[in-house]
Amino acid sequence: MANAMTVKATLQDGMCFDAETGSGHHLLLDAAAHNGGEDKGPRPMEMLLVALATCAGMDILSILRKKRQRITSYEVHVHGERTEEHPKAFVDITVEHIVTGHAIQPQAVERAIELTEERYCGASAMLGKAAKLTHIFRVLEAHKSQ
Amino acid sequence: MANAMTVKATLQDGMCFDAETGSGHHLLLDAAAHNGGEDKGPRPMEMLLVALATCAGMDILSILRKKRQRITSYEVHVHGERTEEHPKAFVDITVEHIVTGHAIQPQAVERAIELTEERYCGASAMLGKAAKLTHIFRVLEAHKSQ
Repeated sequence: MANAMTVKATLQDGMCFDAETGSGHHLLLDAAAHNGGEDKGPRPMEMLLVALATCAGMDILSILRKKRQRITSYEVHVHGERTEEHPKAFVDITVEHIVTGHAIQPQAVERAIELTEERYCGASAMLGKAAKLTHIFRVLEAHKSQ
Repeated sequence: MANAMTVKATLQDGMCFDAETGSGHHLLLDAAAHNGGEDKGPRPMEMLLVALATCAGMDILSILRKKRQRITSYEVHVHGERTEEHPKAFVDITVEHIVTGHAIQPQAVERAIELTEERYCGASAMLGKAAKLTHIFRVLEAHKSQ
């Protein structure tokens, strides 16, 4: 299938895994000390939030660039709340987009977020079936020198 | 909330983001060249499969160690098929667990996978609401020297 993706995770030691993605990149994942790990890399569940932040981020960026918005910096902050009990899945996730630039139009950002959520972002589509996703945004004016 | 997790993703240049997890680790994510990126890091959607492979992997490992199974190596291979159309979400994901060790009991691996899917793994619980997840496994005997 043309759109298949693959990952191979290999146990290193303790709870630490080396994950190799189909695109050829490696990353280490590990548990915290209180879960038997050594914190050599991020937690597996954090990767769901990384996927969401950057999948949505790239889509929003593409749309805003097509709309000729002059972005000088862009941050995506994700906060996910999990159940106390196993399986400790996220139940509520807030994604805050902080877009800085020159005369950025808030309506353009709002529309880009809508299109991303409703149509383009695969991570939003998947995680949105399991948790309540909320996107919020702030638009900041860049200093003249930026 | 005690079980909250956070991620902050900051645009570097092009489509490349630096993601900092709440546990204090950094990783770069990037798009492929045909999507306007420079392949400086893995794709956001690959991170969903990394989360699944390593979240399930750590849970299964914990269970098998409690059952005193003598594991010498462990690999988790994940293959996810996506829709051709946007949002290109995964619809079918196969997770293959390859457990090598000394006299590993296949029933122990099978039961560990069941417990992980049904009870412990947050990534399985979430992605299983959006895609069909299938876990398969192989048990291999370690060479004497391992």
